[in-house]
Amino acid sequence: MTPPPQGLTHQPATSQPRQQFGSDNYAGVCPQALDAINRAATGSTPAYGDDAWTRLAAKAVTDLFDAPQARVFFVFNGTAANALVLATLCPPYCSIIASEIAHVDTSERGATEFFSGGAKLVTPPTGDGKVTPASITQAMRRTRDFEASTPAVVSITQPTENGLLYTIDEIRAIANTCHDNGLRLHMDGARFANAVAALECTPAAMTWQSGVDALTFGGTKNGMAMGDAVVFFTPQLAQGFAERAKQGGQLASKMRFLSAPWLSMVQSGAWLANARHANAAAAAFAQAIAGIDTVELAWPVQSNGVFVLMPEHVANTLRAQGWRFYTVFGSVYRFMFAWDACMDSVAALAADLRASAQG
Amino acid sequence: MTPPPQGLTHQPATSQPRQQFGSDNYAGVCPQALDAINRAATGSTPAYGDDAWTRLAAKAVTDLFDAPQARVFFVFNGTAANALVLATLCPPYCSIIASEIAHVDTSERGATEFFSGGAKLVTPPTGDGKVTPASITQAMRRTRDFEASTPAVVSITQPTENGLLYTIDEIRAIANTCHDNGLRLHMDGARFANAVAALECTPAAMTWQSGVDALTFGGTKNGMAMGDAVVFFTPQLAQGFAERAKQGGQLASKMRFLSAPWLSMVQSGAWLANARHANAAAAAFAQAIAGIDTVELAWPVQSNGVFVLMPEHVANTLRAQGWRFYTVFGSVYRFMFAWDACMDSVAALAADLRASAQG
Amino acid sequence: MTPPPQGLTHQPATSQPRQQFGSDNYAGVCPQALDAINRAATGSTPAYGDDAWTRLAAKAVTDLFDAPQARVFFVFNGTAANALVLATLCPPYCSIIASEIAHVDTSERGATEFFSGGAKLVTPPTGDGKVTPASITQAMRRTRDFEASTPAVVSITQPTENGLLYTIDEIRAIANTCHDNGLRLHMDGARFANAVAALECTPAAMTWQSGVDALTFGGTKNGMAMGDAVVFFTPQLAQGFAERAKQGGQLASKMRFLSAPWLSMVQSGAWLANARHANAAAAAFAQAIAGIDTVELAWPVQSNGVFVLMPEHVANTLRAQGWRFYTVFGSVYRFMFAWDACMDSVAALAADLRASAQG
Amino acid sequence: MTPPPQGLTHQPATSQPRQQFGSDNYAGVCPQALDAINRAATGSTPAYGDDAWTRLAAKAVTDLFDAPQARVFFVFNGTAANALVLATLCPPYCSIIASEIAHVDTSERGATEFFSGGAKLVTPPTGDGKVTPASITQAMRRTRDFEASTPAVVSITQPTENGLLYTIDEIRAIANTCHDNGLRLHMDGARFANAVAALECTPAAMTWQSGVDALTFGGTKNGMAMGDAVVFFTPQLAQGFAERAKQGGQLASKMRFLSAPWLSMVQSGAWLANARHANAAAAAFAQAIAGIDTVELAWPVQSNGVFVLMPEHVANTLRAQGWRFYTVFGSVYRFMFAWDACMDSVAALAADLRASAQG
Repeated sequence: MTPPPQGLTHQPATSQPRQQFGSDNYAGVCPQALDAINRAATGSTPAYGDDAWTRLAAKAVTDLFDAPQARVFFVFNGTAANALVLATLCPPYCSIIASEIAHVDTSERGATEFFSGGAKLVTPPTGDGKVTPASITQAMRRTRDFEASTPAVVSITQPTENGLLYTIDEIRAIANTCHDNGLRLHMDGARFANAVAALECTPAAMTWQSGVDALTFGGTKNGMAMGDAVVFFTPQLAQGFAERAKQGGQLASKMRFLSAPWLSMVQSGAWLANARHANAAAAAFAQAIAGIDTVELAWPVQSNGVFVLMPEHVANTLRAQGWRFYTVFGSVYRFMFAWDACMDSVAALAADLRASAQG
Repeated sequence: MTPPPQGLTHQPATSQPRQQFGSDNYAGVCPQALDAINRAATGSTPAYGDDAWTRLAAKAVTDLFDAPQARVFFVFNGTAANALVLATLCPPYCSIIASEIAHVDTSERGATEFFSGGAKLVTPPTGDGKVTPASITQAMRRTRDFEASTPAVVSITQPTENGLLYTIDEIRAIANTCHDNGLRLHMDGARFANAVAALECTPAAMTWQSGVDALTFGGTKNGMAMGDAVVFFTPQLAQGFAERAKQGGQLASKMRFLSAPWLSMVQSGAWLANARHANAAAAAFAQAIAGIDTVELAWPVQSNGVFVLMPEHVANTLRAQGWRFYTVFGSVYRFMFAWDACMDSVAALAADLRASAQG
Repeated sequence: MTPPPQGLTHQPATSQPRQQFGSDNYAGVCPQALDAINRAATGSTPAYGDDAWTRLAAKAVTDLFDAPQARVFFVFNGTAANALVLATLCPPYCSIIASEIAHVDTSERGATEFFSGGAKLVTPPTGDGKVTPASITQAMRRTRDFEASTPAVVSITQPTENGLLYTIDEIRAIANTCHDNGLRLHMDGARFANAVAALECTPAAMTWQSGVDALTFGGTKNGMAMGDAVVFFTPQLAQGFAERAKQGGQLASKMRFLSAPWLSMVQSGAWLANARHANAAAAAFAQAIAGIDTVELAWPVQSNGVFVLMPEHVANTLRAQGWRFYTVFGSVYRFMFAWDACMDSVAALAADLRASAQG
Repeated sequence: MTPPPQGLTHQPATSQPRQQFGSDNYAGVCPQALDAINRAATGSTPAYGDDAWTRLAAKAVTDLFDAPQARVFFVFNGTAANALVLATLCPPYCSIIASEIAHVDTSERGATEFFSGGAKLVTPPTGDGKVTPASITQAMRRTRDFEASTPAVVSITQPTENGLLYTIDEIRAIANTCHDNGLRLHMDGARFANAVAALECTPAAMTWQSGVDALTFGGTKNGMAMGDAVVFFTPQLAQGFAERAKQGGQLASKMRFLSAPWLSMVQSGAWLANARHANAAAAAFAQAIAGIDTVELAWPVQSNGVFVLMPEHVANTLRAQGWRFYTVFGSVYRFMFAWDACMDSVAALAADLRASAQG
């Protein structure tokens, strides 16, 4: 929050000259979510979630999962959702097994350690970023002593941080390993909708029917302004979550501005349509850069991200042209596509990439 | 988040039948803040605050305070703002002196203890809820041993939780006591705008010019959907705040939806106009219930809340009529007025109260 | 830990010229505890409590309480014992009700807040330092909102920090109030033996038979070098304690040096004999200063501490004569008597006090 | 702390039938430390470290390091020493780089995460358990984003958990890398004396003269009953340590029973003699098992531990014969030798191992 750069007008333009694919957080608010905010904006409504919007939104989510007994909470963002779930499921003296590229480990600045009061993340190497039953078993073996933080939870990201999907069978196998060992299974679904869209399964099939105990259901990346949902499929596991959320600064006083967009997104089907569009944009981009010498995909494109291996000079050229994207490591670069991905911009980016690589 | 009550339509009505005064959080979003959300909704913008809206909003706030060196942060709510500031200013093995009715002690479910990692709130009795130099000195005397959590910060709420105002002179006297004793001074300004409106002073006069080190500047109660600002007037005191906010789940990915409304509210002057209107509604209500036997004000009305001493049967009757308000304790009841207070509703409430008390 | 004062010999003298009564921590190790250390000093023994001394010591403690099902743990000191018990019984988002002079609140520098990860201490005024059913009920009323840290535990100190005793009936009444309200009852028995000696009851009567759920059983003040015990009378409440102790740096690798003295103290009866002697010394001192004008007892002498109201000049004179004691507040001064109290020194102190007050 | 096994006499025998080498914590208290306890046992001494023993012990340690400005603290055990140092040096939102076999990561049950309030341990693979400048640089590269817990400290164990030594040059190179990157360097010296004995250097050379900022100086494994020292070579880095120790339950009330043995051990030279003996026993054992087919050393023997690769059936036979030792992983087994290692027992163990392997 440094002083504004020179030359900025006093009000930022409402549209940027060029769409960017650095993050699916660059996108704005989709019409359905925006409409809900506008409709909730007036009138007098009880605070802290004791309102009709919030009750209906929670009901819409449990309906979506065909899980009437599930407990649903709305918090401000995904880091808080993940950290609060993990703190609820994992005592401070235990540990959470996750992939070595899990967002909870690499990108939340110790939120899990902080919210849990000392729980440890154990991240066995996985190869492709997907936790396996074998990697869980291996991590358990290394931490079975009383001296170590015994695992209590496994956290998987669906889709993973590098854009891969767990199949339903893979989730079920992980859940079985968890439950055989007394562990709970958390799914970080910051892009959950993208996974549902890609696997063409029901939300239930991908979660509680496969053994997932608790889900972070991402709303922000799905097209809202902010606000992620937490779903506990076994209600007693939610014990203490509401209190932790309050203590952790995650109980919105005007809760309806988190919940009304959820109601709208779920009821309208925008949650799934947005994800389908984003996935399609990623597929289109991958298609458009296929067959370029020196450029290849780091991983198959299975959701809304494309991870590209390309020479550093290509990346530099693209950046000099004004494109924004992340360097994951070495010469692997990430392009993320959101609900608002403009196919012309996708094509323009692909064309620039091709030109630079072949130039 | 229990199942919705019977008879609710599938979409809540956008306006409630009757305006309520239980909390200034019952109100919706004012037009200026809503307009900003709508204008920020489209286009591609870098995430996590690295955007023009956020830069301009931070600049607008430092301009408002005539404090170019100040550091400004936007977080999701007031509990987080308070707890993160106090955790930044107070080591885990020290304490914070506050009033015994301070929101940070009574209504944030241990957020300060949690975010700080163990700091203690020390709440000497104050009589009217206002911290005094003498109450600080007394609290310091009780905790000067190495065995005790030595005070490091004083936190005052302006206006207080019972609607009273510290005068500029009172703030300066408290700040002097703080600084003479090596303490920092935090102001919880959840309703800061109401205090500025009431005292008709500049934001600077009420804060850094009087010795306040850090401010929680409330946006939600002032008419936004969510989002409070934190202002450190001495930049080096902000050391670690951004990192704590990230770790604490308070860094919005689509930050512009917190910051754009701030920009709009400050630039348009709505922040102050909203507060003036709310204060005026409170004054009108107090005026309208004056002179009723058995009903009196628990404290003078100095901002946007009215605290009424009235017989329990009067409260019960009002509630039976559908009015919502808080019982503070015993037979003291709280009525809060927001930016959207409808003078007709205020008058209707007053009339019902008068009728019930005199009936 | 500043550099040593001038003139100190390179090895401190093993006995100080004058016995002091500032704290019962000034005393050394009693012969029974010392003998146990010497006997445990040789030989090869498994670490971390997996040894015969520790098993026998735990058994001796459960025998002493006639509570075979109880779980016993040995930790390094009383602050850790209290904080770990309270963290085990109280979630981070709840609170603990204690007296406003409770050691856990005034003298452990936020250990409870720290170990629990954010639990709050609620300390209703009690008059004489003894929690009452009414003070519990009052504290619960103030914190019943979701916004507040709901009470989960009551902690009482037996004897209290000002030397008073709860009767068995008082403990039972408190326990009933706790259990009627879903609260657990913790007893901080830093001087538990002194209470048993004074009330001439069984350890069982004062604890689980009266409804105490968990006890901190003080060893250090009772004549050991260090090491307090924790006793959970309901074994399932101990869930997580061992793990918290390990994580909290309270699992002694050479555990036998904590446990062997406990075994010796309990089996020999020294635990009770030491306490009786200390109590008798306090009574003798109180007796010896009775009837002096301007000097009176602040509270009745019921255990091993004497709290004296006396003119400041008398305190100053005594200190000038080399006596060490604590100023509690105002002109109330504390004299503590330990297992090793020398009756000649007690008499000398009383004589100096009398002379100074009457001089 | 389960009930005692059948047949145990009511007092454990003071010597076990067979010396064991599972841990250097199996050993008792050496005569010099025991003598200090006995000598400190009587007399009246101020509590909490305000006593002559503690002042002299602190002075003896700073003299030993030729570092008069250093700050010295005595705490109960090594886990607490490490965790408190790291919490003092590392903010909750930063991280500590350590070896993937570091005791602070594998064997302290999240103590560092807990005491620091959320700091993360980052453990790049090292090959042989020794942190290198390259592994630090690599870990820093992976965590340089604002989203990650930026490293603030490097912690190295000297000797390492697998018995290897950093040379003075290696320590200096690590320290240079640290300081070039704004990191502090902590040395976990749970077996510091063994390293000094092995490298035949001064304590100063291995620590502050090579750039170490803070040291955990192990006393328990060196022959004391309990109690490790913490040494900050730069006094201002100790800011807050004493307060954290108090809050963390690590301020001994009868401090002299921690400090007097330190005074005795340092002044008598027992600290170094004990370590030399332990190292010699390890060397003798390694020598005695040399040349056995199917048995080899997992790592060179450089301090007081011997890590042996041997067939599982050999380990099983030894255990059936009553020998206790740890399985590190796979078929690597650990034998630790303490100040009291009896050369006959060492020879007996070696003979049994040889017989079993060659049988």
